Amino acid sequence: MKHSESDPLRAGETQAPLPERTDARLVFIGRIRTPFVTRDLCPRQGSADGPECRVEVDEPWQAGLQGLEGYEQVEVLYWLHEARRDLVVQCPKSDGNLIGTFALRSPLRPNPIGTSICTLVRVEPGAVIVRGLDCLDRTPLLDIKPYRGEFKPQAKAKG
Amino acid sequence: MKHSESDPLRAGETQAPLPERTDARLVFIGRIRTPFVTRDLCPRQGSADGPECRVEVDEPWQAGLQGLEGYEQVEVLYWLHEARRDLVVQCPKSDGNLIGTFALRSPLRPNPIGTSICTLVRVEPGAVIVRGLDCLDRTPLLDIKPYRGEFKPQAKAKG
Repeated sequence: MKHSESDPLRAGETQAPLPERTDARLVFIGRIRTPFVTRDLCPRQGSADGPECRVEVDEPWQAGLQGLEGYEQVEVLYWLHEARRDLVVQCPKSDGNLIGTFALRSPLRPNPIGTSICTLVRVEPGAVIVRGLDCLDRTPLLDIKPYRGEFKPQAKAKG
Repeated sequence: MKHSESDPLRAGETQAPLPERTDARLVFIGRIRTPFVTRDLCPRQGSADGPECRVEVDEPWQAGLQGLEGYEQVEVLYWLHEARRDLVVQCPKSDGNLIGTFALRSPLRPNPIGTSICTLVRVEPGAVIVRGLDCLDRTPLLDIKPYRGEFKPQAKAKG
């Protein structure tokens, strides 16, 4: 069972309640459709041979996909909307081992932003089909970027 | 000259003003000290042999660094605080070529979150020293995660 906002703390876990302030605001620009409809179905980490997922971009941002089809890998950023934000030391596996939040890729973190490097399958009007995501179905979308390893769109056509 | 919030639009660029709503709030958990004190000094992309930068974590999140010292690469997330957020089609190089925002790693995007994979140099109390960043000095820090390629802390000591 994965750890979530509603779970009790485990022995030794340390809390740092999130301050009330808003230093910056995020706007959800779409949502991610995956086959993982509960947290327990989410893989620990996305895989390049994982299922196709649909990254849906809302109007008015759909025009921003222009040119993305030339890339083979994209980075997807999303909001881990079910994650608690107040743990600084965690016990990720119920084995009693305590690890700092920043030494884990756990969704439980002060700013729960997920990042995944995905294989680009194709670009459709208003959506990007990728492999390699591990997030819940209907996860809010924050951003899509070409993967940093590639500096400019590839000329070759995609199969 | 890099494009910023105060620059005029270039020919063909398309705007999508950010909606007023706040779908999620971010809290800055520290700041990043780099030698790049103006936008024009920032490299296009960070390099593993770039200068050492200091990722400072505020109390009460410093305990979250526990265990990070075992990793060789870390992902750093930060807020691109000087970037305008309303461009969906951009002309990144003033050469008249128009490209969608999501086909660029430009800082100008609806949710201006920067992500960098960095070489971990060392962990100090309340700070992480890394190479590979390209952001402005005093950029607000959002998160630090071990790089996804490594599943668990390495046992070996770091030189």
